[in-house]
Formats: sequence, structure tokens, C-alpha cells
Amino acid sequence: MSSNFGERLKISIFGQSHSDAIGVNIDGLPVGEYIDLEQVQAFLQRRAPGQNAYSTTRTEADVPKVLSGLWQDRTCGAPLCAMIENTDTRSKDYSNLRKMPRPGHADYTAAVKYQGFQDYRGGGHFSGRLTAPLCFAGAVCMQILERKGITIGAHIAAIKQCQDTSWDTVNITAQMLQDVTKKTFPTIDDKAGEQMQAVIAQAKAEQNSVGGIIEAVAVGLPVGLGEPMFDGIESKVAALLYAIPAVKGVEFGAGFAAATMMGSMHNDDFYYDAAGNIKTKTNHHGGSLGGISSGMPLVVRAAFKPTPSISQEQQTIGWETKRNETLRIVGRHDPCIVPRAVPCVEAAIAIALLDLYLLQYRG
Amino acid sequence: MSSNFGERLKISIFGQSHSDAIGVNIDGLPVGEYIDLEQVQAFLQRRAPGQNAYSTTRTEADVPKVLSGLWQDRTCGAPLCAMIENTDTRSKDYSNLRKMPRPGHADYTAAVKYQGFQDYRGGGHFSGRLTAPLCFAGAVCMQILERKGITIGAHIAAIKQCQDTSWDTVNITAQMLQDVTKKTFPTIDDKAGEQMQAVIAQAKAEQNSVGGIIEAVAVGLPVGLGEPMFDGIESKVAALLYAIPAVKGVEFGAGFAAATMMGSMHNDDFYYDAAGNIKTKTNHHGGSLGGISSGMPLVVRAAFKPTPSISQEQQTIGWETKRNETLRIVGRHDPCIVPRAVPCVEAAIAIALLDLYLLQYRG
Amino acid sequence: MSSNFGERLKISIFGQSHSDAIGVNIDGLPVGEYIDLEQVQAFLQRRAPGQNAYSTTRTEADVPKVLSGLWQDRTCGAPLCAMIENTDTRSKDYSNLRKMPRPGHADYTAAVKYQGFQDYRGGGHFSGRLTAPLCFAGAVCMQILERKGITIGAHIAAIKQCQDTSWDTVNITAQMLQDVTKKTFPTIDDKAGEQMQAVIAQAKAEQNSVGGIIEAVAVGLPVGLGEPMFDGIESKVAALLYAIPAVKGVEFGAGFAAATMMGSMHNDDFYYDAAGNIKTKTNHHGGSLGGISSGMPLVVRAAFKPTPSISQEQQTIGWETKRNETLRIVGRHDPCIVPRAVPCVEAAIAIALLDLYLLQYRG
Amino acid sequence: MSSNFGERLKISIFGQSHSDAIGVNIDGLPVGEYIDLEQVQAFLQRRAPGQNAYSTTRTEADVPKVLSGLWQDRTCGAPLCAMIENTDTRSKDYSNLRKMPRPGHADYTAAVKYQGFQDYRGGGHFSGRLTAPLCFAGAVCMQILERKGITIGAHIAAIKQCQDTSWDTVNITAQMLQDVTKKTFPTIDDKAGEQMQAVIAQAKAEQNSVGGIIEAVAVGLPVGLGEPMFDGIESKVAALLYAIPAVKGVEFGAGFAAATMMGSMHNDDFYYDAAGNIKTKTNHHGGSLGGISSGMPLVVRAAFKPTPSISQEQQTIGWETKRNETLRIVGRHDPCIVPRAVPCVEAAIAIALLDLYLLQYRG
Repeated sequence: MSSNFGERLKISIFGQSHSDAIGVNIDGLPVGEYIDLEQVQAFLQRRAPGQNAYSTTRTEADVPKVLSGLWQDRTCGAPLCAMIENTDTRSKDYSNLRKMPRPGHADYTAAVKYQGFQDYRGGGHFSGRLTAPLCFAGAVCMQILERKGITIGAHIAAIKQCQDTSWDTVNITAQMLQDVTKKTFPTIDDKAGEQMQAVIAQAKAEQNSVGGIIEAVAVGLPVGLGEPMFDGIESKVAALLYAIPAVKGVEFGAGFAAATMMGSMHNDDFYYDAAGNIKTKTNHHGGSLGGISSGMPLVVRAAFKPTPSISQEQQTIGWETKRNETLRIVGRHDPCIVPRAVPCVEAAIAIALLDLYLLQYRG
Repeated sequence: MSSNFGERLKISIFGQSHSDAIGVNIDGLPVGEYIDLEQVQAFLQRRAPGQNAYSTTRTEADVPKVLSGLWQDRTCGAPLCAMIENTDTRSKDYSNLRKMPRPGHADYTAAVKYQGFQDYRGGGHFSGRLTAPLCFAGAVCMQILERKGITIGAHIAAIKQCQDTSWDTVNITAQMLQDVTKKTFPTIDDKAGEQMQAVIAQAKAEQNSVGGIIEAVAVGLPVGLGEPMFDGIESKVAALLYAIPAVKGVEFGAGFAAATMMGSMHNDDFYYDAAGNIKTKTNHHGGSLGGISSGMPLVVRAAFKPTPSISQEQQTIGWETKRNETLRIVGRHDPCIVPRAVPCVEAAIAIALLDLYLLQYRG
Repeated sequence: MSSNFGERLKISIFGQSHSDAIGVNIDGLPVGEYIDLEQVQAFLQRRAPGQNAYSTTRTEADVPKVLSGLWQDRTCGAPLCAMIENTDTRSKDYSNLRKMPRPGHADYTAAVKYQGFQDYRGGGHFSGRLTAPLCFAGAVCMQILERKGITIGAHIAAIKQCQDTSWDTVNITAQMLQDVTKKTFPTIDDKAGEQMQAVIAQAKAEQNSVGGIIEAVAVGLPVGLGEPMFDGIESKVAALLYAIPAVKGVEFGAGFAAATMMGSMHNDDFYYDAAGNIKTKTNHHGGSLGGISSGMPLVVRAAFKPTPSISQEQQTIGWETKRNETLRIVGRHDPCIVPRAVPCVEAAIAIALLDLYLLQYRG
Repeated sequence: MSSNFGERLKISIFGQSHSDAIGVNIDGLPVGEYIDLEQVQAFLQRRAPGQNAYSTTRTEADVPKVLSGLWQDRTCGAPLCAMIENTDTRSKDYSNLRKMPRPGHADYTAAVKYQGFQDYRGGGHFSGRLTAPLCFAGAVCMQILERKGITIGAHIAAIKQCQDTSWDTVNITAQMLQDVTKKTFPTIDDKAGEQMQAVIAQAKAEQNSVGGIIEAVAVGLPVGLGEPMFDGIESKVAALLYAIPAVKGVEFGAGFAAATMMGSMHNDDFYYDAAGNIKTKTNHHGGSLGGISSGMPLVVRAAFKPTPSISQEQQTIGWETKRNETLRIVGRHDPCIVPRAVPCVEAAIAIALLDLYLLQYRG
């Protein structure tokens, strides 16, 4: 496994869906930083199941317990370790997993990689639950970044073909981000949000699932974050986003659309604004030039495939029967994980940005 | 900078566009591997400028000189270091760079990050030339992977809106890949290739530039490569692809299209083929499940923005004048770097896959 | 902090002396390895305080709780995280620490490094308690190494000037190691052991402390472990040994004595033994040549300074008074930590060797 | 191999004794640092063979050529790569190596580890020549550290049993260090130096070799360098010192002697000096408490075994004959490498300290 990430900031994530606990150990945080654990708890709530009718009915307290690393509510230089106990598990839901790998899941690949020794219950270390410790780490990083003037926010840009409106990624402000992230179903346009929820409900009724796209923006970045060539902003952020289950594509700025543009259109002209700051008139580059932050908003989009666990009948193989088999997944499953993944995307970006921030400002 | 990459395989790239030499140091290669340097040279030729009418007219020998690491043509356990001398440079082309950052380039961000001490000539360490050592390393990795039955190939999937046909990513073979990569302008459909070249010529005539998409496939992967959660195949490959200048998006399998699909459609059913191997009927997952290779072809697409250096007049700022200025870039510039980037994409994937291969097969 | 170690094996240690818990997260263990937690518990007991009259009277259960990473008693590929709760703490013992740094401790250096935000209670993250998670990790590694034929054992080579007899480091066997490590006070010669305990008792009576030397041996190593130049066996093992508090010197084979020998004496001649194995007649090289294991027993010695916490009056500075002050440390303190450090030394070596073992046997 | 080192500073060393060139790639240096290449050259001269009658008669220009990373004599943010060509090699000296491993060398272990594919000529990547690129990197780091007020110097503390006098490691100054390092044979006491040279000459006459001890001191360190628990100063410095061939022991402060002292003696009392700085009255701790620098001089000693290559007859095995054989090494060999290793020790410490310095002073 490589549940370890980072250069200046080291993140180690542990836990399986049905182990005693899941958690994260964070080493390298700047000292003396006040961490508001209630705010962290609130951030985790945004991903917790049982929140709304469109998520699974599995309920977990998801209350993190800090084991070390804080002294009088501030980072004390020692690693910050937080643990979340797994309290609501229904093992019998997963009895089929021993016999047949679920299409679209890591059951098959993990079984081969770990030679049958993997903890298959609930997807083991590949379960979406492991985004909880990722979110804990991200929430801590976000608090520290906020104090440095950096704000991260995300909205659901699309569910299936249903699209939200866009932000003005040249002039977007922290306030505009917060206006959206505070919503239970975070879209810029509420009407689009309602349509998306209808699409998700429809999928649930059909025992099917849908995917979507999350777009995130970070404002207030200083110029100069990113360590080319292999740890540029895009490399760092993408590596972390792909750690979130179901991500199949990551793009920055104009992204894949840039491939269809002429240079004269895609290039963002530089200019001095009234205060003498250097900005660009447009932001097709999405805040990163040569892998280094330009000071313009960082714009990134992550594409999520539809949730693999659907109740419809599927075709797979039998491990022991050695025959092709039919599988019907029962139990509690999200028809769409995108709404719950929004804080995960913000968390991933926060971890990458803090690591790069700590790398840039050195002796 | 972080010009260092890898876990089991360590790649260090050095050089600037106008330094004495550029090169790469590779540590961790398996011992006793025969390296065909002529084949490496041929691979580098695919990216060398001056090859065809659509590239820049800057010509470099681009002949790598191996300084260490091979003994009697085989990897000897010591690091493999190769150097390429920069022989054809015209410094005067870049005299404006001291005065004004070019839109779309790293001039601005590097100047701020490195406090004005960066080597700005030709883009310094951010120059596309630094893909030459990346390609050297990739070519070496590809030879080693080939012997393990793994073949990587790529085609130009699109230039602007002009698209190539697709591969059958379920049944694609090494031969099908090689049939395309051996072409000077690597497209599956030759007609599409001609149209693309016309689009590029048109852009050149207009003193403009275009971008495109490269799609790569790796066949013959064993099941089990990838180290979740942070070093899954997608994380590793994406991190390396974003090290190639101009990449703004990376997607796997169905990619962003997966966001528009239902689960019943996107899920790839498992089955036993006639020989008893486990395969999937479709390949929307693009060869990676849970960040681990499934044995199906790995499918990845990288989006390239249009080349920033265009001859048309652009708007930027003057470093010393502190006023908004007009810039006209002279010199030799590619109207489209996508054809030259094809081997770079293959190289990036090869490095990531060999690192993961060496991680998986351990004591 | 860098509480993270390892290349193939990643160890993250968390916790402070008085935080809720201490623990370790281990990533990269081979899958399917059966871990006998009772044996691990027994190993930890060897370092647990309250064991004998010569240790502190602080008693801790020191029972590790595995949070993740084992499934049906075997490593399952996901990170193995274990936690030990801190249950017996007497904070009031350390009230002076806020006012005056203790000579020989990290109070001063940590206060400056962490700008006063460090958790000073009981020495925080610098407490000897943090060797408990190190020992947990080491015990797990030792079980895995045992199955590969590698046995590690250590004895107390000296307390102050009182010396144990020596092992025959050419012909030493696993049995000879185990005969010593099973003793409560692990010396080869029991009489020497009694003398040492008398020296320790004397120091305690004088409100003073003593140091000592621990010698460890690993037998059954294959030839070829170690990754020169920077991750040779000596580099790896030394780096880990210096993570144990109070270590001030590490030497291999003849060590510092090698500096006084002629080459004709120090060189170990090679020969074929009766079974055709390559061995050396003597073992001044201590099992490592060029940073790579030779197959001969690995021999290493670590020197421990006397415990800094003594009850005698000492001179130090007052943080707030800004004057020179007198300090009298009360509370429970070991007059000698060497007996408790024996398993820590074995643990450190086990972690280093398993990491190198996993690096050597790759694809 | 792991010829890569460092966290913030990344050092990659390449080359074998008889490859085309050897060199080093350094990534992560602070930008804008002026590097005096003549001073670097002078530093390398201190290790170059052919300097005096006590070294080998192999002569190499040892002139490093900077390939990248400097722009107008300053570090420009891109990796600094330097290469030294191997020009004076006499291959026929090493023809025996194919047949018989030399006692005390890495021939045997490397042959097994690298399955016979290693470059055995002159010891390959294990040759003492590879200390040249290490010294280049160290010299660069030393210049940068000097500007931060940190000076490193070393003397030959002992050759065989012949000892130099000691420095006052409490009050030692940069000037005192420089007074010794500028000598051709760097000892504090010149008479002791002459005796040592006589011992070396005697060994040469006997076709034998001797070892010794080098003691190094670093003054001007700020308080707070070192990242416990695994990257404390001792761990970092020791790991790098063991990368120098022939090092078999490393100790800090009182080192192994600390094991014989009482706590009341070994503890160094803190006090405020006249200027209000916090110092210790004695320096048994050698400048490191809890793995973090205390501001007092860092004191470290490295023990070197006697050079393995002696002309006397030795016993070894025949690879192909499968019999025990007699070996007589001809060619040019140092009777004692300690004098040439002095700059290597300084270099190793400089690299470790700069890495830690860059880690401490972050955002």
C-alpha cells in the first residue's frame, strides 16, 4: 500500500471499512496553529452518510478523537493523530464478496494484489469511508491555509448531463465560495441543484447510479507554490484527487477544452491592476503556469464515475466455481456519491496546497 | 524544484534550455538489463525538433551520452546517468524575456518563485527540451517493460476539433499499438492525420498555435500494479504526465464521459475467457480499479493546451517599466507541440509503470 | 518532526508522553503474514516500566490495541495501526518543566524549535515512552524476519565500566541469542549481570544515573541487503538506533577499535566452508561490506548516555526569571534505562532489516 | 542502489570508478546563492590523490564541470549537476577482481547483490572515487552554511594508536577550525601529525595499511535543527557519514565514553552568558539534545577501518575454481585513506546540516 503522502507534510491514513477504527496521522504541521475541532467535525458532517435522502442509510457518528499532536488546542510539533471508530457495520451485507468480485470495484484487483489476504468486508481499505480521515486532514489544513488568506471551495458542476452554472474564475472571491459550500447540496444555482437531486432520485428508483463532476477553486494563493518538474501544483493536486475513490479524470483551468482552442484565445494576457498587482485578464490557465501558482484562482475539476454498487443484476465470475455468475448486490448503497465527495475534493486540494506552501517558504 | 520522482525507481532530471547540458540520473533499475542505446536514440528522435515541417527549426543532435550505470551494455546496479549537450542555442531570441513575461509561459511564476535568479533563457528548466531526458528515462523503462510483456503506445487523438478514430480498448494488442507508433505522424487513421497536419499548417500561417489530445494505451499489464491509496496507478501516471509542459487534463478509461453514464452502463462485467483468464467485457474503467491494474489495457488521455509562444501581438506587463506592454515573440516556435509530445506521454507512463512494477514484486 | 521512516516499509509514530495515546502506523508490510499479538505483547513487556526494582515505578498496561491492518490475524495489505493508551500519568511531577529546562533533556531544544508550543509534559514526543510504538513495529518486523530465517538478539555489553563477556561473532547461532534475550536482565554472563545491577542500585542510592552499551547481533541474513550509497545497512540501522533517546554512539563490527588495527589484521579472509558456502574466518567487518550484508552475523553496538533525570541538584536557567537557577527533579526516574532499551535496539534493527529485505527482493 | 539522499535537499550521486564520468545532481538548494567554483575546486583538492607521498599515485584532474543549475554564478532554482570525468584509469590493475573477491571490499557482496552484473573495475560504484561528487555537494552546502554563520571543520584525531590533541569543544571558534583545516595534514598538534605520518609510512613499507579517527565540529548552529524522531541531527549526520567507504563507527559528544559516566558528570548544566545567550558549561552532549541542535558546537567522530587493499598475501575464494585461493593485490593503493577522508567528513556533515536547516525554516 502507499497510504503515505507528502514532502514537508506527511499524511498516513489507516483503517479498513470494518476494522476497529480508521484514522490519520499528520506529521509536519506548523507549530502553534490553533485547530478548531468543532469546525473540523462540521466539515466531516458534510460527507457523513445519513445526511439526506440521497445518501446511504448507514449512519456513523464519524466523531474524530484526537490521540496526539495538540496541546492546549494548538499543534505542538508532534504528529497529530486522529481516530474514528467504526461503530455501525453490518457484515452480513458483504457475504457475497468472498465469492464474487463486484464489477467496478477493487474487489478483484485487491484480491489478486494481496493474494486473497485482503480484508474484503465493505471494500476494506478501498471503502469510501477512508475519505473520512482524508477529510479530517484536509479540514486541519484548510484552517491553517485560511489564516494565510487561502480559501478553498467546491460545487457540484454536473450530475450526469445536468449542469450547474459557472463561477467567474477570474474575479471569484472567498465569499462567493463560502456562499455555495455552506449549502447542503452545494450548487451555485439552486434550480440546477434541484434538477440534479431529481436525477439522483430517478437513478435510485431504477436501482442504478449516476456520476458527476465537482469543480473546486482556491483563491488567495500567493505566487510561487509548486515544485516543478515532478511536484508542480497539478501533479500534487491530481495525485491526491485520484486517491478519492471513483475519480477518473482531473483537469485544470480550461482543461480538455484547452485542446480545442487557439493559442491566441487560450493565452491569458498579463496586466497591472489599479493596485499594481500582476493579474491575467482571463484564467484559462486555471491558476497554474509551469506547475507554479500564478496568484489567479486555482481551478480544478474532478470527474466521478457512477457508483459501482447498484442493485441491478450484474455479470461477474465466481472465485471458487470458476464459472461466470450473476450477482445481485443488496444492502445500503449511494446512487450517487458526488454530493458527499465535495468536501473530499476540497480536503485533497487543501493537503496538497499546504504541503507546497510549507515547501516554498523555507530557510 | 522537485526534479526527483519515484519510490523504487528514482529519477532526477537536470538542465536548463541553455545550460551546458541536460540529462537524467536513474537509480533503482533492475540489474542485468540489456539496454539498446540505438533504440533509445531512435525513441528520442521522435521528439527531436527539425524532424518535419510542422516543428521548430531548431536542430539539436539530441544524442545522449551515458556517463555511468551500464557495464557491457547492461544495467550494473549503479545509477544510470545520461547527458545531452545543448549545442544549438540562439540566446538573442530570448532577450525580451528579461523585460516581459510571456503569456501562458512560466516566465512570470518562475521569476517570482525564484526571486529573479532563474535562468530565463529559453524558458530555463521549464523548457520543452527537458522532455528529452524524461524520454531517455522512459525509453530505458520501456525496454525493460517490454521484456516483461508490457507494451505502451500512443496516438494523437485530436488536434483542435479534428479527431482520430479510436482503438478497441478491450481487444487492442501490442501489434496494433506498434502499427501506429512507428508512423511519423502517429494517428490510427491516416486521413485524420492529414487533416490534423492541415490544421497545424493553418495555425502556423496565422502566427497562431493549436493544442490537442494524446491517448495512450498499455497492454500486457499484470494484475496488481498500483499502491493505494496515494500511489495508485492513476495518481502515479497523472503526476508524471503533468510534468510534461502544456498538459492541462488527464483522464482514464471513460474519463470525464464517465460522469455522464449510468452505473449499469459504466460498470464492466467480469467473465472468464476461453483460457480461464479473468477479463471484463467492456473497458470503461480503463484498466484500473481502485488504483490497481486489472489486467485490461490501461487507457489514458492527456490534454495539451495550445503552444503559448505565438508570433501574434500579445499583452503583458513590463518588469521594470511597471506598465502594461505589448509583446511580439520572434524566433522559432512550434505551432503545435502535440506530435512531439507523443513519445513524452509514452515515456511518462513507462516510468510510472516500472516504478509500480518494482514495488509490487518484492520480498 | 520526522516521525516517519522507511522506503518500502513506512513507519509513522505518534503520541506524546501525556497525550491520550501513543502508537504507530506501519505501511508496506508483506501481505498474509501471521502476527502473533501475544508474542508482541511479551516483547513490549521487556521494556515496560515497573518490571523490576531497577526501573521507574510508573506502571502502564502498555497493551497495544490494533486498530487496523490485520484480518483474521494476518496482514491484509492495509496499514497496520496500533495504539497504546496512556493511563498512568502524574502531571504534577512535571510542573517545573514550564519554568526550567532540565539538563541533558530535549526541553530546551524543543522549546526553541517549537517556539514554546511543545507539549512539555513528561518530555512530550521525546519521552522514552515513544519507544513503545517503536518496539511494537519492531516486534512485528521480527516475527516476519524470523520466518525468513533471520534472528535478532541483544545483550547488555556494559553498564558504566562493568562489562559482560562477548559472543563469538563468527559462529554465533540463533539459539545462543535466544538463550540470552529470554533473561530478565539480558547478559551472557550472569555474574556480570549481577555486578551491573549492583552498579545501577548504587547509582540509584546516590540519586545519580549510569549509562551503558548494548550489543546486538542478527544472524541468518542473506547476502545482498543494503542499498548503497545512502541506504547501506550501517546508514539504515544507525539512523534508526539514533531515534532511541540517549543513544550517543553506534559502531559496527570492530567499530572504533578498527581504527587501531592494521589492514592485515582487520581484513576478514574469505573461504568456502564444508558445505560450499562463502564465509569469512573472522568477522571484524561485522556482517557489512560496502554497506551490503555479507551473510556473516551483523554486529552492532549502541552507546547510551546516563539517564539525564537525576534527583541531585543541578544548575540551569529560568525561562521567565532570565536568571541562572537551581533545579531539583522529583518524581519517578530510571537510574539506568539500558536494560529497558535492549528490546528497543532489537526493534530498531528489525525495522531497518525488513525495509532492506523488501527493497532487495523486487521485480 | 540508493544513491539518493535528502528531504528538502535532494542529492543524487552517479558514477563508477571506471565509467566515463562521476558526478552529482543537487536539487532543492536555495536560490540566488553565489557559488565560488574555485573554492569548491580547492576543497576537492584536499581529497585528490597524488597530493602527497602518503596517498596513491593515481592522479586525476578531479576538475568538476557544472552542467546545469547555475546562472551567472548563482543557484537559479534548477538542479545543480556537476560531472567529473574519469581520465586516469588503469584497468589491468583489476583483472583479478573477476576471479576473486578482495577481503574487506564490497566485491563479494556487490557480486551477489547485483548477480554478477556489477561493474567490478576499481570497485565500481563502491570506489572511494565516489567521494569526489559527495565532496562537491558538500563544498556547495558549506558555502551556503558559511553565509548563515555555520562553519564546519575536522582534524585527524587518531591514526592507529597515535592521537592528536583535542579541541575545547565548549569554546571552539570558527577561526580555530580554519587554522587546522588549512593544513595539508590537518592535525591540531603538528608533532602528532608528524608521528601519524611516520606510522602511515611504516605501514606502507610493510605493505600493510592503517585506519584512524576523524573528529569534526560545526560551530554557529542555530538552536532547533533536527527533525525527531527519525531525522534528528545524529540520525541524519550518521546516515551520511556511513556513506563514506570504510566508516565503521560514528559517535557524538562524549560518544561511547558517555556510557562510562555518571549522570551528574555527563549532564551539561545550562546557564545565561554575559550577553544573555543560553549555553551549557560543558559539552558532553556534543551539540545535540533529543536530536535537535542546542546551539553548542556539534561534535562528531567517525572511525575508519584500515584500507582493505594491502599488498600482502591474503586468503580468499575463487569464483570459478570454487576453491580457496591466495590473492596478491598489485597496483596503486593508499596505506591510509584517513587524511583524504577529512574533507569527505566535512562534506557529509554540511549536506546533512543544510537539509535540516532548510527543513526548519519553513512557512
